[in-house]
Amino acid sequence: MQVTQVRTTGFHDGSTDHIFKTTHTALPALKPGEVKICTDWISIDPAMRGWTTNKPSYMPPVQPGEIMRCFGVAEVLESQSKHFAQGDWVTGFMGVQDYGVVSQNGLRKVDLNLAEAKDYLAGLGMTGFTGYFGMTDIGQPQAGETVVVSAASGAVGSIAAQVAKLAGARVIGIAGGPEKCAYLLDTLKLDGVIDYKNDHMPSALKRECPKGIDVYFDNVGGATLDAVLACINYQGRIVVCGAVSQYADFANVSGPANFMTVVTHSLKIQGFTMKDYMHRVPEAFSYLLKAKQTGDIIFREHIVAGLENFQSALEMIFTGKNHGKLLLKVEK
Amino acid sequence: MQVTQVRTTGFHDGSTDHIFKTTHTALPALKPGEVKICTDWISIDPAMRGWTTNKPSYMPPVQPGEIMRCFGVAEVLESQSKHFAQGDWVTGFMGVQDYGVVSQNGLRKVDLNLAEAKDYLAGLGMTGFTGYFGMTDIGQPQAGETVVVSAASGAVGSIAAQVAKLAGARVIGIAGGPEKCAYLLDTLKLDGVIDYKNDHMPSALKRECPKGIDVYFDNVGGATLDAVLACINYQGRIVVCGAVSQYADFANVSGPANFMTVVTHSLKIQGFTMKDYMHRVPEAFSYLLKAKQTGDIIFREHIVAGLENFQSALEMIFTGKNHGKLLLKVEK
Repeated sequence: MQVTQVRTTGFHDGSTDHIFKTTHTALPALKPGEVKICTDWISIDPAMRGWTTNKPSYMPPVQPGEIMRCFGVAEVLESQSKHFAQGDWVTGFMGVQDYGVVSQNGLRKVDLNLAEAKDYLAGLGMTGFTGYFGMTDIGQPQAGETVVVSAASGAVGSIAAQVAKLAGARVIGIAGGPEKCAYLLDTLKLDGVIDYKNDHMPSALKRECPKGIDVYFDNVGGATLDAVLACINYQGRIVVCGAVSQYADFANVSGPANFMTVVTHSLKIQGFTMKDYMHRVPEAFSYLLKAKQTGDIIFREHIVAGLENFQSALEMIFTGKNHGKLLLKVEK
Repeated sequence: MQVTQVRTTGFHDGSTDHIFKTTHTALPALKPGEVKICTDWISIDPAMRGWTTNKPSYMPPVQPGEIMRCFGVAEVLESQSKHFAQGDWVTGFMGVQDYGVVSQNGLRKVDLNLAEAKDYLAGLGMTGFTGYFGMTDIGQPQAGETVVVSAASGAVGSIAAQVAKLAGARVIGIAGGPEKCAYLLDTLKLDGVIDYKNDHMPSALKRECPKGIDVYFDNVGGATLDAVLACINYQGRIVVCGAVSQYADFANVSGPANFMTVVTHSLKIQGFTMKDYMHRVPEAFSYLLKAKQTGDIIFREHIVAGLENFQSALEMIFTGKNHGKLLLKVEK
């Protein structure tokens, strides 16, 4: 059986994303502990740029020539694992390919009676969990507090913003352009928005946050973080979100200009990735499933079809052209 | 009754500490809610420079001509407060003066049967509490972890280092000069020392912390913080201590050069002052009193006598000439 894979041809070096090629090979034989899967959905994530950069991070880089790593949802076609059977649906680390043989490690079963397959990569997957844990566990918004979320119309930011709303906070979203800002106000019902492409950040923050800022969900660092710190309240919390830390040039992001605000305002600045919270996934899943069912949290996906569009989809995420969680539908 | 006071003549502007004069005036009459006290000990703290700088901070600045603010221990001579009686000993905010009339607010009783008066300004006072809460609550050192404390021979740092030792951590102290380093090794029994005046910080950290750094109790920021971040472990914690944030030129302290370490290593950077922990003082007091009685924590004080030496004592703290908690004994 010939299958189609997207492989890397080298490391991402900050200048180009043209490091992918499509190959067609036969699947290897199943070994004990492995399953043969048919991939249905692939999550397109900023972290993918990190995985293809040749430096140590929370996961080893994908070596040139290897099948590109992804987080996906797939059906089990054949199993040499005692944890999974033919016909099970699973999510976890797999490859950018239509069919594959993967290790049972890092896979978990999903229940298509509870939600659609793609939900497990979006609001009910790593993206949703990241927004939930970052806001709930680190941000800890209290009723009446002011919360600012950057990249608020994005996959993680939109969940984080809605989790803060549900906690009773006043939530201000930062996004680029009138369409995204309108979505935050009209659909997600945030309390205020800042269009970073058209607003002057320091004065916009003062306008939208007259009582100061208690929690900042930081997706971008840099000048926006400095502007937030100028409005931060006593015991403010800065959630530094790992989901977008792999953006180009992130190695050159320096810390806040006035570091002593950390002391004078008793601030907490905390970074995280989902690696820190894997043991608490069921908690996030229950919360988000309920919020989805009651309509308290809205998930938005942006769907691109076809493995051949993998590279252009990945580019899209770094130019902000997607609206909502970016997913690749695998066609067969 | 004529009493002696140290008053400010202006604001500290970063160039000089010569902003104090001694005056002699009569005490005002006692009003309801006030007590007349005889000051016994005065705590000399880095925060004093902040209190005399004309910018908003966690406390309002001392206005020119006012009696200099201090934290002290005193005996109540006369009381118009229902909380305190003649003969009680109290600690809290008072003035740099031999006798004074002060508000009951911000005072609390101390028990001279448990410890000496001066202890309540040192290991059993704000200094001890600051080291205890910063290390215990924010640093949260675990047995076997590596903890680095800057200004480790100082008043707060020496408590923080010993608290980490008691938690079972491997503790490395940073101090300036051979005498202080010998004290850390020989008396406080730390596991390693770095002499920042004679060692190359990045290589010294690698030498003393072969397993990386889990907790850093930061008294200084700047290049040392950058060097620590280059050795920090996953889920490391940076405790940014408020006690020394008022050092000269602190407004120009910038954040860590590579801010994204916060995300890649899931770091927590948290600032604090004792204001955050006033409601938990009894917890710290019990811990430190027991540790003092069992000999598990050693307190060291550096005593200067006489109100006339207030200014030179304050200068001492910024040049690192004191060994241990700096206290002024009020002579009458």
